[in-house]
Amino acid sequence: MYTADAKVFFEPKSIAIVGASPRADNMGRVILSNLKSKYKGELFVVNPKYDYIEGLRSYRSLNEIDKDVDLVVVAVNAALTPSVLEDAGKKGVRGAIIFSGGFAETGTEEGIRLQEEVVSIAKRYSMRILGPNCIGVYNSANGVDTFFLPEERMRRPRPGPIAIISQSGALLATLMDWAAANNVGISKAINFGNKVDIDEIDSLNYLAGASDVKVILMYLEGVTKGRELVDAIRKVTYGSRKPVLVLKGGRTAEGSRATLSHTASIAGSYDVFKEAMSEANAIVVEDLQEMFDAAKVLSSGALPRSPRVAVITNSGGHGVIATDNLVSRGLQVPQPSQATLDALKGLFPQRVSLRNPFDLTGDARPEQVELVAETLLSNNDADALLLVALVQPPTMDLNKTFDTIINVRKRHPDLPLAVVTIGASYGEKLAEMLEAAGIPTFEFPDRAARALSDLWKCRLCVEAESNSNDTMPTVNSSAAELVNNIIARAIKEGRNKLLEDESLEVLRAYGIPVADYCTAVDEDDVKSCAQGLGFPLVMKVISPDIIHKSDVGGVVLNINSVDEATSAYMSILSNVRLRAPHADVRGVLLQKMVRDGYEVMVGGARDPQFGPIVTFGLGGLLVELVSDIAMRLAPVGLKQALQMISTTRAYTLLKGYRGMQRANLESVAEIISRLSILLYNHLPIKEVDINPVLARIEQATAVDARIIVGGG
Amino acid sequence: MYTADAKVFFEPKSIAIVGASPRADNMGRVILSNLKSKYKGELFVVNPKYDYIEGLRSYRSLNEIDKDVDLVVVAVNAALTPSVLEDAGKKGVRGAIIFSGGFAETGTEEGIRLQEEVVSIAKRYSMRILGPNCIGVYNSANGVDTFFLPEERMRRPRPGPIAIISQSGALLATLMDWAAANNVGISKAINFGNKVDIDEIDSLNYLAGASDVKVILMYLEGVTKGRELVDAIRKVTYGSRKPVLVLKGGRTAEGSRATLSHTASIAGSYDVFKEAMSEANAIVVEDLQEMFDAAKVLSSGALPRSPRVAVITNSGGHGVIATDNLVSRGLQVPQPSQATLDALKGLFPQRVSLRNPFDLTGDARPEQVELVAETLLSNNDADALLLVALVQPPTMDLNKTFDTIINVRKRHPDLPLAVVTIGASYGEKLAEMLEAAGIPTFEFPDRAARALSDLWKCRLCVEAESNSNDTMPTVNSSAAELVNNIIARAIKEGRNKLLEDESLEVLRAYGIPVADYCTAVDEDDVKSCAQGLGFPLVMKVISPDIIHKSDVGGVVLNINSVDEATSAYMSILSNVRLRAPHADVRGVLLQKMVRDGYEVMVGGARDPQFGPIVTFGLGGLLVELVSDIAMRLAPVGLKQALQMISTTRAYTLLKGYRGMQRANLESVAEIISRLSILLYNHLPIKEVDINPVLARIEQATAVDARIIVGGG
Repeated sequence: MYTADAKVFFEPKSIAIVGASPRADNMGRVILSNLKSKYKGELFVVNPKYDYIEGLRSYRSLNEIDKDVDLVVVAVNAALTPSVLEDAGKKGVRGAIIFSGGFAETGTEEGIRLQEEVVSIAKRYSMRILGPNCIGVYNSANGVDTFFLPEERMRRPRPGPIAIISQSGALLATLMDWAAANNVGISKAINFGNKVDIDEIDSLNYLAGASDVKVILMYLEGVTKGRELVDAIRKVTYGSRKPVLVLKGGRTAEGSRATLSHTASIAGSYDVFKEAMSEANAIVVEDLQEMFDAAKVLSSGALPRSPRVAVITNSGGHGVIATDNLVSRGLQVPQPSQATLDALKGLFPQRVSLRNPFDLTGDARPEQVELVAETLLSNNDADALLLVALVQPPTMDLNKTFDTIINVRKRHPDLPLAVVTIGASYGEKLAEMLEAAGIPTFEFPDRAARALSDLWKCRLCVEAESNSNDTMPTVNSSAAELVNNIIARAIKEGRNKLLEDESLEVLRAYGIPVADYCTAVDEDDVKSCAQGLGFPLVMKVISPDIIHKSDVGGVVLNINSVDEATSAYMSILSNVRLRAPHADVRGVLLQKMVRDGYEVMVGGARDPQFGPIVTFGLGGLLVELVSDIAMRLAPVGLKQALQMISTTRAYTLLKGYRGMQRANLESVAEIISRLSILLYNHLPIKEVDINPVLARIEQATAVDARIIVGGG
Repeated sequence: MYTADAKVFFEPKSIAIVGASPRADNMGRVILSNLKSKYKGELFVVNPKYDYIEGLRSYRSLNEIDKDVDLVVVAVNAALTPSVLEDAGKKGVRGAIIFSGGFAETGTEEGIRLQEEVVSIAKRYSMRILGPNCIGVYNSANGVDTFFLPEERMRRPRPGPIAIISQSGALLATLMDWAAANNVGISKAINFGNKVDIDEIDSLNYLAGASDVKVILMYLEGVTKGRELVDAIRKVTYGSRKPVLVLKGGRTAEGSRATLSHTASIAGSYDVFKEAMSEANAIVVEDLQEMFDAAKVLSSGALPRSPRVAVITNSGGHGVIATDNLVSRGLQVPQPSQATLDALKGLFPQRVSLRNPFDLTGDARPEQVELVAETLLSNNDADALLLVALVQPPTMDLNKTFDTIINVRKRHPDLPLAVVTIGASYGEKLAEMLEAAGIPTFEFPDRAARALSDLWKCRLCVEAESNSNDTMPTVNSSAAELVNNIIARAIKEGRNKLLEDESLEVLRAYGIPVADYCTAVDEDDVKSCAQGLGFPLVMKVISPDIIHKSDVGGVVLNINSVDEATSAYMSILSNVRLRAPHADVRGVLLQKMVRDGYEVMVGGARDPQFGPIVTFGLGGLLVELVSDIAMRLAPVGLKQALQMISTTRAYTLLKGYRGMQRANLESVAEIISRLSILLYNHLPIKEVDINPVLARIEQATAVDARIIVGGG
């Protein structure tokens, strides 16, 4: 089901470490110690300078090992790496991890050459490469751990439901250590550095099928194979029903500049990235703190069944802030049922308000917290609990507070639960005890609320329906060839913009309704065109050299007779001759004027990472005034196109604004869908703008189009 | 200069604690212990049951004390409080702090009655009250500390530049403890609970003049005296040049519900709150974590001189995330000068990119970090430093790392500096050592970046120019009476909406240009009105009973002659007679049709907390389509009105969109300003919408207005 390209790195049967030395700070030695203590497969060491390292026989070369080697850990510097790979290839090794920097990320000629050499050797021997410039791979299931930091510099977390894919090695190392310190369970992790071969897509493909992985966290910088990434994530989210949380580094121009020097990859527009992740059903987190906090709650319990959260607090202010943050993030803080109110009635002083958030006030005792929690949960009043248990007041005995929270957890082992606690040594101690017992704690209610909201997003993620069964409109089988010819002609003539009539012809070929038009190259043409089209008409000069046609008198509107058409033709020609004497005039376009209808815009472009995208929004004059753009990766089906429309302000217009008539939404959706197929099919099309599309009650019609093409 | 109503609480010469007992968990006893150990004034204890408490003589009553008592600390329950206050009043006490709950916050009759009694006693004796239901006041300068938690439940922070005003006592207690744990310096703090008297405004007035307070943090829930709050904050920010950071609890409806039960105050719209804070030059923070993190950097160094931040990191990923977060929050990560590049050239391996962010890679050594920092700072390349110093790599020796950071701090004691460090026991140890040395550390680069951005906002805050010297247009002296009469007539007739012509008359009275109009009650009127106005005209029925005039045929457009006007009059009357037979018809409005011009909207409303507000945005059909509203507290002067306009999408139109003419912006601004004065002057006006205002090259004209009035 899944491509297993990364499998040899996570599940090697045997590993050889090349370049380990007995020196304590030697990278290979640290990896060797780690693997020796927990790796379940066969382990070899290669270093011609020594006979034994850490009690293991040291081979002079890979060649000397008389058993099969699955994976080679290359702990030598960049310059020595090619010869190690050469040996590994000859030995029949399946994968190699290269830790050393000094390759393409340096931007130096030598580094780039070395990286190319590595790739070429690997290809020759069909050997897979992880790295260079990475910290490798971690698998709690079999003890694979190439992270070359000793335990005292990077603690190892307990096994658990989370896997991490990180483009940054240092970030991954801090995440691992933080997870260990916070009792967050991590089963697998991988970092690929310069990713000359194994990348996030291979990693996702492997992790989708790993039974001990329930959630995947990703830190990405540059994205090179955007579409494949989307497909790989979809396999995890829709296919394996595992949530994927993504943090993108390099969202700003300055941040991208940093990733450029960091991993030699180019970051695209963050908006397109977010849209692509949304289509992949991934959850985009905004910062590292959010990702870590989410990891904490994800590793401690099940996903909530509903967005209903009960807040129980012994500090009013904390309850208010928790509630604000829950609600503004899409969760609910609903009122308790009558059964709960009846059960609690008379058990609390009048100053305690038995509403959600439940502010038990500064005098609250731990057993009251437990009572309210149990009553709410037994009456099914909430599916998650945010507990503010400040142990500053003397009424909150530390051990009793801990016991009552543990009681709740024991009775509801799957309950999503976050505890906020802060306050002197008592608070620190309570947090420590709870964390050790697997209950996530937070110093601040806003962070606890955000983490619970991410948990809910994960629930929505694993339940989301894929829209892969969407209907695609059928495109005429001759369309592609016709469009290819038009593009080829333009490119041959050195034009990157299609002519007026060419653009309309392209749209029409793809089944997009276009306002009737006709091209005239002389007066006779004008007459027959005008008669054929009927009135009113608009006429425009056709020329590759004239960008602003109105400015040179190249456009005449409201033509109502053949005579008017003829005189418009004359005036256009003479205007152009006067004001743009060197322009290559190819003729004049006559086009039926479409009256009324809502002006919308359908467009498309090509993102460097994610390829063709289609856009929709308000058109005409409003385009620049109002930012109203829905965006999708192309192609989109009719359902998806309708969804796009419904997220825009233009939708307010189209569905019948202020008593005006509803436009034919399906017809607009079809234009979006057909344009998306056009972009998807024809790589040389760089940009398309149909503006306006006039949407009326009967159908939507493209009036004016601008198509930019280019080689490659 | 400042009202000193809160001074007696922060600087009492003597304090009497009423209700302390020798029991260890007694609130009065805890306060007594705290005060005994550090309060610099005279201290008395009152409890008739004992002769001595904690070695102090216990008086039988306040009356028995033979010296002056400035402040009484009332540590008895709600029911006993009135008699203590009565004694205090007789004794001539100037202020009393009431800790006990059981007053109005309970919502019970008895609680409300007790609170009223407290207020009335205090008024009788001109005694100021802090509370009830509060934890009181803290002043590091003289040892005043009524926070009734012992040190082991709430550590006390070191003295420092920060003061805290918190509506929530529990929140304040956690903040104090957190500050102590994080080496954040706090000089003063106050919590007022039910705030029957002393509130955030009194607190601000006092803190504005307190020389040991450099920054004020506020946690607010309900705001009752919005305008006074704005004025008080302005005195601190513009007057005393101290930044104010505000966190608002109760931003969502659910959160407000919580504050309602919590402190019996009603929260208004968060958007209006944010606008009001912006006008007060306060900095609104979005969550508690942000406020705490900001406090940490604020307490450790000076404000930055510019938004230029240098990022130095030994983890590429952390550098990328730091840069993203700095830039997206308005800071700059600029490239180093040539001098810096020259100085560093050749000192680093080629893989190190000497660009900002400076990624010294995983092999970086502490002295390299110091070298880069020093070179940058000595060349004046940055005014703040975000340092990612992960001590996971073996090259980063813990003590050496600490020493180099301390070296940088010593050479640049005022430099805004934030250090990100995480990683096993080494990371925790480094953080601990740095915090102890007064250098703020963060686990995550995003939080460090946000804190630095708040520091920069503080800098902008203390430098901001107040717009108090704005020009107000002059309103005719007879306007107020005229408007009052119109409103009085409407209210007398039981109408809450002014008639068409009344609304236009109100606007005209305040000097707002209105499209010419004339009211007709018979055919002769119609003729003379039409002749007087000229053409084209629009005619509308005037009736308090007809809301949608077009729906009943009560509107006729495009009237071009006296005859057309007469026949329109007939047809309006007969339409209305048929379709709204019971409507009270007061006549017909004839109004000159204004052609062309950009449609904008000027409106006003009354916020429950902040009073009159004025709004501006796109008008006409676009109002509902596009959310484009600028908002200000009324009244606004002409400069402020122009600023409002410039923040909207309407501005894109007005300044001349797509080659169209620029509208008279000053004329639009004058309408905004005049409408704001109208709202400010006339409390019974609840809502005004002028939509559209037609803005043309010559001037802007109000065409249609809707004015809602009400009693009170």
